[in-house]
Amino acid sequence: MKNNLQKINPIGLKQVKIDDLFWNPWEKLVKDSIIPYQWDALNDRIEGAAPSRTITNFEIAAGRNDGKHYGMVFQDSDLYKWMETVAFSLSVEDDPEWEKIMDDVIDLIEAAQEEDGYLNTYFSVNEPDKKWTNLKNDHELYCAGHLIEAAVAYYEATGKKRVIDLVSRLVDHIQSVLGKEQGKKPGYPGHPEIELALMKLYKVTGDTKYIDLCQFFIEERGKRNPDHYYDIEMEERGGPKHDDDRDNDYYQAHLPVRAQKTAEGHAVRATYLYSGMVDLASELKDEDLLEVCRTLWENTVNKRMYVTGGIGSQSHEERFTVDYDLPNDRAYTETCAAIALIMWAHRMVHIEADAKYTDVLERALYNGALSGISLDGKGYFYVNPLEVWPHTANCRHDMNTVKPTRQPWFGCACCPPNIARLLASLGSYIYSSNDEELYVHLFIGGETEAELSGHKVTLKQESNYPWKGDISYSFEMEGKTTFTLATRIPGWCTNAEILVNGEEVVYDLDKGYAKINRTWSPEDVVEVSFHMPVEVVRSHPEVRENAGKVALQRGPVIYCLEEMDNGKNLQDLSIPADQNFVVNHESELLNGVTVIRGQATQTDRDQIEDSLYSTKKLNRKNREFKAIPYYAWSNRGENEMTVWVREE
Amino acid sequence: MKNNLQKINPIGLKQVKIDDLFWNPWEKLVKDSIIPYQWDALNDRIEGAAPSRTITNFEIAAGRNDGKHYGMVFQDSDLYKWMETVAFSLSVEDDPEWEKIMDDVIDLIEAAQEEDGYLNTYFSVNEPDKKWTNLKNDHELYCAGHLIEAAVAYYEATGKKRVIDLVSRLVDHIQSVLGKEQGKKPGYPGHPEIELALMKLYKVTGDTKYIDLCQFFIEERGKRNPDHYYDIEMEERGGPKHDDDRDNDYYQAHLPVRAQKTAEGHAVRATYLYSGMVDLASELKDEDLLEVCRTLWENTVNKRMYVTGGIGSQSHEERFTVDYDLPNDRAYTETCAAIALIMWAHRMVHIEADAKYTDVLERALYNGALSGISLDGKGYFYVNPLEVWPHTANCRHDMNTVKPTRQPWFGCACCPPNIARLLASLGSYIYSSNDEELYVHLFIGGETEAELSGHKVTLKQESNYPWKGDISYSFEMEGKTTFTLATRIPGWCTNAEILVNGEEVVYDLDKGYAKINRTWSPEDVVEVSFHMPVEVVRSHPEVRENAGKVALQRGPVIYCLEEMDNGKNLQDLSIPADQNFVVNHESELLNGVTVIRGQATQTDRDQIEDSLYSTKKLNRKNREFKAIPYYAWSNRGENEMTVWVREE
Repeated sequence: MKNNLQKINPIGLKQVKIDDLFWNPWEKLVKDSIIPYQWDALNDRIEGAAPSRTITNFEIAAGRNDGKHYGMVFQDSDLYKWMETVAFSLSVEDDPEWEKIMDDVIDLIEAAQEEDGYLNTYFSVNEPDKKWTNLKNDHELYCAGHLIEAAVAYYEATGKKRVIDLVSRLVDHIQSVLGKEQGKKPGYPGHPEIELALMKLYKVTGDTKYIDLCQFFIEERGKRNPDHYYDIEMEERGGPKHDDDRDNDYYQAHLPVRAQKTAEGHAVRATYLYSGMVDLASELKDEDLLEVCRTLWENTVNKRMYVTGGIGSQSHEERFTVDYDLPNDRAYTETCAAIALIMWAHRMVHIEADAKYTDVLERALYNGALSGISLDGKGYFYVNPLEVWPHTANCRHDMNTVKPTRQPWFGCACCPPNIARLLASLGSYIYSSNDEELYVHLFIGGETEAELSGHKVTLKQESNYPWKGDISYSFEMEGKTTFTLATRIPGWCTNAEILVNGEEVVYDLDKGYAKINRTWSPEDVVEVSFHMPVEVVRSHPEVRENAGKVALQRGPVIYCLEEMDNGKNLQDLSIPADQNFVVNHESELLNGVTVIRGQATQTDRDQIEDSLYSTKKLNRKNREFKAIPYYAWSNRGENEMTVWVREE
Repeated sequence: MKNNLQKINPIGLKQVKIDDLFWNPWEKLVKDSIIPYQWDALNDRIEGAAPSRTITNFEIAAGRNDGKHYGMVFQDSDLYKWMETVAFSLSVEDDPEWEKIMDDVIDLIEAAQEEDGYLNTYFSVNEPDKKWTNLKNDHELYCAGHLIEAAVAYYEATGKKRVIDLVSRLVDHIQSVLGKEQGKKPGYPGHPEIELALMKLYKVTGDTKYIDLCQFFIEERGKRNPDHYYDIEMEERGGPKHDDDRDNDYYQAHLPVRAQKTAEGHAVRATYLYSGMVDLASELKDEDLLEVCRTLWENTVNKRMYVTGGIGSQSHEERFTVDYDLPNDRAYTETCAAIALIMWAHRMVHIEADAKYTDVLERALYNGALSGISLDGKGYFYVNPLEVWPHTANCRHDMNTVKPTRQPWFGCACCPPNIARLLASLGSYIYSSNDEELYVHLFIGGETEAELSGHKVTLKQESNYPWKGDISYSFEMEGKTTFTLATRIPGWCTNAEILVNGEEVVYDLDKGYAKINRTWSPEDVVEVSFHMPVEVVRSHPEVRENAGKVALQRGPVIYCLEEMDNGKNLQDLSIPADQNFVVNHESELLNGVTVIRGQATQTDRDQIEDSLYSTKKLNRKNREFKAIPYYAWSNRGENEMTVWVREE
């Protein structure tokens, strides 16, 4: 009997090589540019960027430097996410230089760790007597979670156990302070993250005490015994009994998690929590908890997600609001939230082996997450709106989080290292397997190794995805091997064809995966072909911001119109849905993108009067439009952009 | 030679009687309901309403009660605006009971006034040592302005001079503290209002020192000598030299007024200031200053005004933003701002005798101002959006000022007494005259008296405006009199006909006024007939929120669709512009309104899938729609509403 609920198991970074036209530049960017750039940022060596002071904070905590802690209470996590990125990168390819820097950083962290295992530079330096007094807002557990993730990744990359020992001491300390037992605080993190990290720590150590702590955090959340923990700790701090600043739903602590049915509150917190819940449910074979995750998933992706895979439609509290409330110009859709949705989707697909989760994962990956970083890796979006009017966004107070251009760094710099670690770990999202099945989730060229029916099989994938829908697989193995190749047929694809050695095969479509079970030989070639026309996408009519509007999608890529290509006043344009769109790949444009051209009509401004209101019908004239992939917008200076365009 | 730049002179309340189907109920409401209701509110006798404590504050300042001042620093002005309302009402009709209450209130105010003339209950009670130390934010001059306006109105209504003496003492005190002279503070109000009030005080007293003070306030505004006054006073208070909380444009003090070209900052402050500027320019025959007012006017009405006549499109700072930024669901469009626009328009039309100003006045009157009050006079909108989705407005933080239903009172209760004083003074907006011309601006039944060519003429107006476009005039006078009747042809009307004694006359159209110069006899009857079809209105294409949308207008009335008549999800509807709309008067509906019915198409929800995004085209089905006047919305409970509808 399996010891968890996973139908398939992820194939890790070490078993995957990426060699892909679309992703190679990004992977190179991570290694050659983003990792060094962010290291410079953490060390405050980027001119014009918001200060980080992250390394300095650790130096101060370690007694190697003087001064006070600077920045957010969760500033440490910027370093940890960067470390996880480096660790992922080292899993893919050795690099003694960065490994040396990592070891030095781990030295520094160890020196900043207190005798009893406590580790958080803000509290160690600035408020040593306030530790663990405000779990609701103070991010100590959140930072610990990111350090655990970095430690697990580094251990997996290098086999070096020192960092695991370091985080074990930290978790032991946490378990001495928090828990159900007499004398401990029955508290849980205001910002979930450590839950999924603890499950990772369990997986590399095999120690079930980490499951227990994760379970405690998840089950305690939102309970009233009879008082809410956040009220209890506030009273202990001497504050008023009720804190009306934020409702508990901001923290997903308004109800016990098993009673939650809708995605509420801060979007990143929510999706980190749900990811940890899936991990826990799987490990404990807890079908009820898994059902909660399914319900929350359906609510998120069918009622509260942008077409880009962005989630969290309100700037204030960076949060979910209500069903179908998805304004485009005030979309918050934090980059981190799209990444967290990918993480959640990745967990769901391993339980259910259902491509509906992978479809969302792919949507967020190619659109709402990738939009968070510029093509040169040096500019970042925290907020990813689907419509930007610089003239208005630069002035309206209710758009003050919308930046019309990517920024070099942020005071709250959660997103840049998060997108970096996503890109660095991309290999781990492509394949899964179980004893007899090899799953291909994403169409990213390269290869992977898997043990199938007791045989070692290497699968090679080649494609020019997402620009083309033709994928080919070949195998390396010793002799013939019987197994099932399960290759995803994307939800966006209505017409797919699979040839084996040139002959069309009838495949079994099982939850979005085309399954071909046969005895494979090393010479076999599988060719998958997705018909990839331009699709005209419409929203559920309840999304009132998109009423009468369409978006263009081709393959997994959502398109947008930029002023740079279409002139000012994009609101003047409308697009007829029934037309033959022209698709071209422009290799010189935006690092090489496939663009869509087509016919539009545009308000004829020649006859416009000065008056604001008129009974005159505005004439329209024909013109061509050009759409580029949404992720690549804002790489050519400040300009208007829109994803949704009026349908003619 | 005339002693000001006015081409025509307003005919005051005492010379006008209103007897009109549309307005009689409102006028009755003011007298029978609003004045007593607001008097109760000021005395805290309304259950469930936000506390006012205004009268209590005066009692405390007068030594007749104990305690601290409660409420806004400008709480006094709620009483003053109410007093002005009562005064207007007494101008129209005597009422010994309310006159007695007014005299008692004036007693109370006099008792609250300090020895040296100072009058402001907040400072007298709570912070007597902080008087005049924060002109930027503390509203002492704003309150003084409203008291002066009330005093002038009461004096004009009753001839009682005591209240004029009271405000004279206050203004003398102000002039002893503020001014250019050595030892005085060169300060001016953060909230303009006193400027126009001082010009009224000059007009009833003839004392030019009030012009001088007004001129000082207007000319000093926004100057740097070399420091900005708001920085100087802040430094004197011991604050930092620069206050970055708000930019000076919020206060219209970013530039000297003569250098201002766009309407900036807090919309009510701006339009009160501009009104005062017109008064001053007229009196001083200052063409340059008048040209500034014209430039600001054009910017306001051609770039920054909603179709309802609402202005100020941002909740934060209740302010103007940038040209063409007019979102409907987050429209702020404070009721007071629409009223202030009416006041400004009223001044402009007297200088220029141009109906383009009256058109805006009428637009704001029948739409954006009247929407601020419920049909029973007991509910108020502070904020007047053009689109309301209760589900979203009740949850989104960036819509937290949008209330889906009218409120009984407000913590900041500027709007209810402001709409009351507008309604009570309605008679003064209808007619103007000069030696030989009698102008009719608004089509409101009743009569007026004017001195024309040395003869006393009574003009009687009858109509069923705004529901019908037929107006008739008749005269009472001793024998034949030669004068010009100048009756406005509204900007919305493309087809007007005028008959005198049944015969069509060819009129001279002078800046939107049809002028008929003849020797009139008492038997003459003038019939004006405006063709009043349903008009389909479109916005300037730069207003991107309205791209592809239309609004319906008939006569001066802007219409809206309410959920009550059209079902939920108004975003599903679109309206073909080319159709025969059906117009009916429904006398039982909303106190009697003319409604518009027509054909619309609607998204067919029967075939909708659960998924958020789909490539399926949504079917549409035909249905009828029903539109009601915008001003009358939200009188039947919480529901969706929209002014702008997609054009089919």
